[in-house]
Amino acid sequence: MNRILEIDIDNIQVMVEPGIIQDALNDALKPYGFFFPPNPGSSAMCTIGGMIAYNASGMRCVKYGTTRNYVRDLEVVLADGTIIHTGSKMLKSAAGYDLTQLITGSEGTLGIVTKASLKIAPLPQTRKLVIASFENAEIAGQAVVKTFSKGVIPSACEILDRVSLQVLRRYDPKLVLPSEGDVLLFEVDGTESSAREAAEQIMKICSPLALSIKLAESENEMADIWAARKLVGAAVSRLDPTKTRIYVGEDVGVPIKKVPELLKKAQEISEKFNLPAMKYGHIGDGNLHLALFIDVLNKDEWDRLSKAADLIHRTAIELGGTVSSEHGVGAARAEYMEAQWGSALEVMRAIKKALDPKGILNPGKLGL
Amino acid sequence: MNRILEIDIDNIQVMVEPGIIQDALNDALKPYGFFFPPNPGSSAMCTIGGMIAYNASGMRCVKYGTTRNYVRDLEVVLADGTIIHTGSKMLKSAAGYDLTQLITGSEGTLGIVTKASLKIAPLPQTRKLVIASFENAEIAGQAVVKTFSKGVIPSACEILDRVSLQVLRRYDPKLVLPSEGDVLLFEVDGTESSAREAAEQIMKICSPLALSIKLAESENEMADIWAARKLVGAAVSRLDPTKTRIYVGEDVGVPIKKVPELLKKAQEISEKFNLPAMKYGHIGDGNLHLALFIDVLNKDEWDRLSKAADLIHRTAIELGGTVSSEHGVGAARAEYMEAQWGSALEVMRAIKKALDPKGILNPGKLGL
Repeated sequence: MNRILEIDIDNIQVMVEPGIIQDALNDALKPYGFFFPPNPGSSAMCTIGGMIAYNASGMRCVKYGTTRNYVRDLEVVLADGTIIHTGSKMLKSAAGYDLTQLITGSEGTLGIVTKASLKIAPLPQTRKLVIASFENAEIAGQAVVKTFSKGVIPSACEILDRVSLQVLRRYDPKLVLPSEGDVLLFEVDGTESSAREAAEQIMKICSPLALSIKLAESENEMADIWAARKLVGAAVSRLDPTKTRIYVGEDVGVPIKKVPELLKKAQEISEKFNLPAMKYGHIGDGNLHLALFIDVLNKDEWDRLSKAADLIHRTAIELGGTVSSEHGVGAARAEYMEAQWGSALEVMRAIKKALDPKGILNPGKLGL
Repeated sequence: MNRILEIDIDNIQVMVEPGIIQDALNDALKPYGFFFPPNPGSSAMCTIGGMIAYNASGMRCVKYGTTRNYVRDLEVVLADGTIIHTGSKMLKSAAGYDLTQLITGSEGTLGIVTKASLKIAPLPQTRKLVIASFENAEIAGQAVVKTFSKGVIPSACEILDRVSLQVLRRYDPKLVLPSEGDVLLFEVDGTESSAREAAEQIMKICSPLALSIKLAESENEMADIWAARKLVGAAVSRLDPTKTRIYVGEDVGVPIKKVPELLKKAQEISEKFNLPAMKYGHIGDGNLHLALFIDVLNKDEWDRLSKAADLIHRTAIELGGTVSSEHGVGAARAEYMEAQWGSALEVMRAIKKALDPKGILNPGKLGL
């Protein structure tokens, strides 16, 4: 189930089986000058089927949107064995419920995807990277809000706080990174001239708030920084060999305007429970990956971790956000669905019951 | 119910009541340098609530997508009186079924929208227009496929066939339009330099197929042509005072690659039933507005019209397309839902029954 069934450039689409790896798909599209834009950090190992199940997104959704914006049609096996197509190769339609979007992000609870038709996009001619450092993460968050509200939409906008930078320097001492503060990476893409214009605008908008700001000099410098950024989740073990990162509360998101507040509260939570925290992620779409570290042999640290994670989830919901921006709910975050959705959760339950009355598809997930 | 409740530039969003008119919303956003991109020809009179109900799109969805791509959250009153929110102000989320997308395009059959939070986009710095004429509409369709497959995505791509051009000339004899053939309008937008580059690429790609091709010289020339394009649906009465346009089969769509075939078959159907036809519409997304004309006092012409429309709908479905790209199904096209959707229609029926067991919301629509 990992084949590319059709590369249909005339329709700007591909048809794939769900087991294909994201990077393998993009390698196959490159000779045609196209790509599948959703770009999770795990693109070397994640499957398209998984991306559809969790509406994956990653770095470039600021400009390009999430996986759901690229799904045109799914072949789905339902609970009773019926096989349906949820859409077509059309770029648009106004005829019937959008089952494609209902299945995308439903975490396997409504049916099993066996084929997918995906929209693709032309590869941009060039990409440029602005690297800016700020006195603290909250000010960095303000710089993001200011940039967007001036109408500049970068292709990616990432934050690496000072702890993440420490980790990266230990991971690769040759990396050229700002020596102080919390860092934003703004990527812009397009034609040579439009990308240059956008990069210059960002530098002008952010300069008054920044400790330092510069345009990456070369393709190599850009490639190095993105490679490191992709590995930051894995490289966190370099922080302290006695501590282990536990994946809880790691995928919250809030509306862009609330990002500075989330960053501030995350810092307060880290201090309150005396747990080292690293903050990185897709700040441009309000999605923050918080990494909390504990000594796994210390029961008290486990207790504090669990309380801190609970508070992080509830803080995101209070700020009008989500307990998961791109990793999904599964069983781990199911307990928060009621708080996040209120009576809309009953609607989801009614749909689940209508399509899977015996509850045989991925039971226990999503709080349904 | 026609107020703008909040213009929230920091979150790149607005919150509106469903009765607000599309142009009124864009007038209010203009001073901020933003706009709500979906752009139906009826923008002077259509409401945002209607656009959400039918997933409206119009001219600029080639680049900007349809209404559903901009809906972030809906306040919805369900059949049992429960009020839910389907989403949030988040740019992305991976927590629960996407009820926002389920409601968008559901034509009022699942609930009544009372508030909407909408993503907005920065106004482009400039727009440019390439006007090309072709020996016939089928070759024009080939030029569209060729342009897209080279990775050039215009902001709009419209077709006006020779009959539409006749109508436009009668409507405004001062209009500067190609004197022969069927015409494509390619609009590109962005910065001055990126728009110029894209326009030049389109001219290079399409020249070998075109009878004539040129860049619109001035803002005024562009504005004139778009104003006329918006009125073509209304101005068709100039074609023949004894004939009236009947809105049937007027909104079919097919995958882009099938557009030349659809144009050819539409011409054959017009000839077979001896009914004058005008072909215009959003060819860039496969959506063709076919206008058929009859003498409304002639019973035989009504019969032929109904047969022609039926064949047009079935042809679109056979080509892997849709009976409605942006106008919706309602009661008029309900009979084709089975043919277009197969067993997926049963899934839509199950969802409808789960959320509106008494069938009180917009009954009889969508073939449910």
